[in-house]
Amino acid sequence: MSGNTIGTLFTVTSFGESHGPAIGCVVDGCPPGLAICEADIQAELDRRKPGTSRHVTQRREPDAVEILSGVFEGKTTGAPIGLLIRNQDQRSKDYGNISEQFRPGHADYTYWQKYGIRDYRGGGRSSARETAVRVAAGAVARKWLFERYGITIQGWMDQLGPIEIPFVSANDIRENPFFAPNNGIVPELEAYMDALRKDGDSVGGGITVAARGVPAGWGEPVYDRFDADLAHALMGINAVKGVEIGAGFDAIAQRGTEHGDEITPQGFLSNNAGGVLGGITTGQDIVARIAIKPTSSIRTPRRSINVRNEEVMVETFGRHDPCVAIRATPIAESMMAIVLMDHALRHRAQCADVDSGLPLVPASAPGA
Amino acid sequence: MSGNTIGTLFTVTSFGESHGPAIGCVVDGCPPGLAICEADIQAELDRRKPGTSRHVTQRREPDAVEILSGVFEGKTTGAPIGLLIRNQDQRSKDYGNISEQFRPGHADYTYWQKYGIRDYRGGGRSSARETAVRVAAGAVARKWLFERYGITIQGWMDQLGPIEIPFVSANDIRENPFFAPNNGIVPELEAYMDALRKDGDSVGGGITVAARGVPAGWGEPVYDRFDADLAHALMGINAVKGVEIGAGFDAIAQRGTEHGDEITPQGFLSNNAGGVLGGITTGQDIVARIAIKPTSSIRTPRRSINVRNEEVMVETFGRHDPCVAIRATPIAESMMAIVLMDHALRHRAQCADVDSGLPLVPASAPGA
Amino acid sequence: MSGNTIGTLFTVTSFGESHGPAIGCVVDGCPPGLAICEADIQAELDRRKPGTSRHVTQRREPDAVEILSGVFEGKTTGAPIGLLIRNQDQRSKDYGNISEQFRPGHADYTYWQKYGIRDYRGGGRSSARETAVRVAAGAVARKWLFERYGITIQGWMDQLGPIEIPFVSANDIRENPFFAPNNGIVPELEAYMDALRKDGDSVGGGITVAARGVPAGWGEPVYDRFDADLAHALMGINAVKGVEIGAGFDAIAQRGTEHGDEITPQGFLSNNAGGVLGGITTGQDIVARIAIKPTSSIRTPRRSINVRNEEVMVETFGRHDPCVAIRATPIAESMMAIVLMDHALRHRAQCADVDSGLPLVPASAPGA
Amino acid sequence: MSGNTIGTLFTVTSFGESHGPAIGCVVDGCPPGLAICEADIQAELDRRKPGTSRHVTQRREPDAVEILSGVFEGKTTGAPIGLLIRNQDQRSKDYGNISEQFRPGHADYTYWQKYGIRDYRGGGRSSARETAVRVAAGAVARKWLFERYGITIQGWMDQLGPIEIPFVSANDIRENPFFAPNNGIVPELEAYMDALRKDGDSVGGGITVAARGVPAGWGEPVYDRFDADLAHALMGINAVKGVEIGAGFDAIAQRGTEHGDEITPQGFLSNNAGGVLGGITTGQDIVARIAIKPTSSIRTPRRSINVRNEEVMVETFGRHDPCVAIRATPIAESMMAIVLMDHALRHRAQCADVDSGLPLVPASAPGA
Repeated sequence: MSGNTIGTLFTVTSFGESHGPAIGCVVDGCPPGLAICEADIQAELDRRKPGTSRHVTQRREPDAVEILSGVFEGKTTGAPIGLLIRNQDQRSKDYGNISEQFRPGHADYTYWQKYGIRDYRGGGRSSARETAVRVAAGAVARKWLFERYGITIQGWMDQLGPIEIPFVSANDIRENPFFAPNNGIVPELEAYMDALRKDGDSVGGGITVAARGVPAGWGEPVYDRFDADLAHALMGINAVKGVEIGAGFDAIAQRGTEHGDEITPQGFLSNNAGGVLGGITTGQDIVARIAIKPTSSIRTPRRSINVRNEEVMVETFGRHDPCVAIRATPIAESMMAIVLMDHALRHRAQCADVDSGLPLVPASAPGA
Repeated sequence: MSGNTIGTLFTVTSFGESHGPAIGCVVDGCPPGLAICEADIQAELDRRKPGTSRHVTQRREPDAVEILSGVFEGKTTGAPIGLLIRNQDQRSKDYGNISEQFRPGHADYTYWQKYGIRDYRGGGRSSARETAVRVAAGAVARKWLFERYGITIQGWMDQLGPIEIPFVSANDIRENPFFAPNNGIVPELEAYMDALRKDGDSVGGGITVAARGVPAGWGEPVYDRFDADLAHALMGINAVKGVEIGAGFDAIAQRGTEHGDEITPQGFLSNNAGGVLGGITTGQDIVARIAIKPTSSIRTPRRSINVRNEEVMVETFGRHDPCVAIRATPIAESMMAIVLMDHALRHRAQCADVDSGLPLVPASAPGA
Repeated sequence: MSGNTIGTLFTVTSFGESHGPAIGCVVDGCPPGLAICEADIQAELDRRKPGTSRHVTQRREPDAVEILSGVFEGKTTGAPIGLLIRNQDQRSKDYGNISEQFRPGHADYTYWQKYGIRDYRGGGRSSARETAVRVAAGAVARKWLFERYGITIQGWMDQLGPIEIPFVSANDIRENPFFAPNNGIVPELEAYMDALRKDGDSVGGGITVAARGVPAGWGEPVYDRFDADLAHALMGINAVKGVEIGAGFDAIAQRGTEHGDEITPQGFLSNNAGGVLGGITTGQDIVARIAIKPTSSIRTPRRSINVRNEEVMVETFGRHDPCVAIRATPIAESMMAIVLMDHALRHRAQCADVDSGLPLVPASAPGA
Repeated sequence: MSGNTIGTLFTVTSFGESHGPAIGCVVDGCPPGLAICEADIQAELDRRKPGTSRHVTQRREPDAVEILSGVFEGKTTGAPIGLLIRNQDQRSKDYGNISEQFRPGHADYTYWQKYGIRDYRGGGRSSARETAVRVAAGAVARKWLFERYGITIQGWMDQLGPIEIPFVSANDIRENPFFAPNNGIVPELEAYMDALRKDGDSVGGGITVAARGVPAGWGEPVYDRFDADLAHALMGINAVKGVEIGAGFDAIAQRGTEHGDEITPQGFLSNNAGGVLGGITTGQDIVARIAIKPTSSIRTPRRSINVRNEEVMVETFGRHDPCVAIRATPIAESMMAIVLMDHALRHRAQCADVDSGLPLVPASAPGA
């Protein structure tokens, strides 16, 4: 395989290019009997889709999903679920000028080095367009996790370029185009983005994603730790350059007396662990954070080379997100969901008969 | 599988507990014809082994490795390489008092929740002792990467608790027990550690690891990106809470004009990418950084529960590293080596025939 | 995963039900630069498609394939190849009477036991309709194997029910609807099938498949032997109950002096091995044979139960192949191709640098 | 990976050569809480071990197994189980004369072609000695299958060269060195073997293996069918050239009215399916049969080549089984056990919540 499948028991196999006829995926391993329909999946796709505010790409894609298999009379059958999204608003001619050039910071160069051939239209396979199928697959996982375990997953933007976004309210997240948990800061974010577009530049962002209600005991202890698989899934999102769990890089300067979360019969007293110890979930909220780099497709001219190793100046036209982090929240949530569902299944394969005698989700598990 | 195997084509399958008779692994997928002997592996193991300074655990383990298979007349045959390390200095009785308790911040609790049974002696399977086999396996990968491609891998400690360690010289790394690239700062590190031990406390650390000479084109573009697999491997090291590639979390506040590394016919002009674009290596140095949390086994009493969900105070005796980060450098290097070798093989499986026409390792690839 | 993916490096992930909107697959791991188009794939699909003679199901499906991704300007890019075939001639109402019953010898019963839910329309996921996507994926593998190595794959029917079919000419295979290498026997086969249909019964068949031009050295020696993976792939075809390689079951009564194929500098003197020794290809023709059971969907009433464990008599209407073996030849060829391509890639991953000094395809390798 | 791991959730990773220091394996994925000790495993190893009658190799190996990990206070912990068997009776000098020659019918030739290097001592990795670790791993699976589900697995020799062995009594199997279910035929088998040895020749054999008590519903429906995975596991045993399930090759000449096993509320009326329909177990006995070729290492001189492609005559001295089928019964049982356990875990991962409403093991499931 060339790495287009993620998961061990709950697997998602993705295909499709930005400007090809369609993108899609095969979701395999979903237990039978889950009620799911296209509207369930569409609701998640609509959160990620382009063209919904002036701060994201103006490409207009309805991202309408078709369920091709695996669902019968409204329920999953245990057979693989084929999901298809037709591309509709390609403007491939925008990309003619970069067909032989490499954008600094873009996968153009590495695809060429790897394959010796490149579908340059809209970034081809390297486009963030592929992430739509992750959101579609993630919708299946989210529904199962909620119906079977009551698990909920929520992400938000915690930083836009230099602007840190204090967490005010989870309710705010759905009320602004940034997924910011803080409606009050939105005018500042909008002003920043408007200036950025004028500059023909782009910027990075930080996203936090948390899962609540995950039972203790999920994850494998050595290589396929829950947090290791989560890091794999999150670092596998386009443009991500860093992943933290719980205290993350702050743990470096912490002492053991500060970092180790004390336990009481009612639950943990803190969550520096981010819900994972020894690679296995603790029953607390799983909390992860990712760093997203600035988009490499910008209007400002930059030094680069072409396929003949000649010097060129590259300017990118076409329609791009000046901050891909803005639409990344549903993607990060989806990857969290996919990893959780995979480990739920892995856990019950080996440990279905185990009863530890302790509550699996502590009563007072502190929030994210 | 329960996650004790890492890799797709170059695989390492690990077994063993801290106080069991032995630890070991099976290294599968090594190409035939590589000259390797026990001394090659021992040299790497000796860099990680315990008891070499007063700042690490005083357990005395020679970590003597035996090659059980896969090597004939000094060369690999293509058959799996069985590696065995006998445990010699167990003091299991030190652990009797915690056999029914959970140390805050330790995998004690999650193992119990997952399996309902726990080899509590020395942390059992969750002990960092398991990482010795990663170093042994990594030694095979390092040798092959160097002989086949000239690739070198070097890690160092960049932060010990609150003390940041400026990079002075790669030569210094081997000359102090901290793997610090800076001999001048060693007295400060030693004083810090001495005070920490007196306090019965522990602390975290930061490690950077870099690979030089990696050709462009390794890595798969979507889920199994090179950086995603590297994040999986590094986050899968005991106590790691964060992973960054290249600019990492600093990329959040960067603009596209700053972050995107410009290219010339002679190579890249910067390395914010950390050697990976779109999940595929660029030919520059691969640079990753990890955050390691403070050890959870400390002498200071802390609040916790036991297996009957009753309140207890936990104090940990036994022999422990007050800063596991000190011995983590060879482990991080080894995981980098294992991921590189796996992707080397994956790359040539699919792209053995490709010639991009560009140099695979740019002449002037800037250092880490 | 739920077993809908085959292969390790060249993988096919299949989805779709007999009477759902579409079937399809994702082909991952194909090297870049292979010239492929829909017509290449369609040619293979047309060999398997239903409704082409009175001896097979009368369902009319054009089996028109659409390439959704992975091909750019006529060449594979290294990205996953999405293939889609819309279902067009479903008559789901034919199946209403068996929606709560289990056909003797059919997967109806085991799907119900496994999943507790069943898409009964046309057999749902258990239908041989799914094999169309294997043929589509196999077409990609066949093209690559031929262009890269000159490998050709040819299957034929060697037995229809009680009638053994002597091999007369490979040319005959394409000239009759049975894939019989013997045009002279066709009238007998037709008369047998006509009588069988009148009886409302079905019958089994035997298929041989051979690959020519495969280099020596492909395959892994212990569990994932080339012949073991081939057995997995062939036994994984609907209705297959037996797999032989080379001398197969005749090897039981052979002596070592008879069975072991002698070698000369010009090649082997016989091919009892069927082209595989120790799980690795010898450079001779790979020869495998499969046994296909009679179709379970027959008009003759039979004793069975329903989902409430009550006795019923089952008669199957709808449109079925009275001998599924008749259309199985292209499927068996495709599975051979998929396994060959997977092992080609696995081989070069580990052994790309090996030169044994011996010819990889013996000059006089005897035919099948 | 180079194919030295079998299984998806219950995995066995094998290492070791015939004349190296040791063979062994890592068994991963065993649920926690299974009572297992070295004596449990040794009992199975003793059934396979060499030197127990004059009809098998005279190499004296105690095959003493050491459990290195994964078991604590007599129970599995969920951690990987390391198993080690030291080699003790190597006589490598016996093999000097064939170090540059290839035995007809032996993996000598293909290993050389694949790897360009070969541990020729005793067949190295290609030796049937490796199968000891399969029996050790299988012992773990058998114990779990029996304790958790009451499943029993029994194999027997059904044919020795030209002599078919009618099934008389399961009790006889343990009472003769051939695993023949028929003590009366043993003198004929002994006379045949004595004559064969005098001739310096070898012969093939047939083995049947059956599992009783397997619940309905195990297996994946498309590629990883239970029977496909079983075929992979059985064809992966050294010297196997054919695999049948249930009616096997006889199904070719059967009609649907004969082959399809009728069902009643009390169970099936026959077992042509061999306990598998659509790749999923039916609750009946799983019945498989394998064909084992004659040993290639024989004293009779044969034509071959050496590593320089020169003509040679090969005679094999050393100690060999003249009929490897004689010791193959415990190996086949072990592979059946490994596949069953893997699918038990896979089944409960996806379908742990399913209740079909039907009995999973029919009351009157007929025997093999």
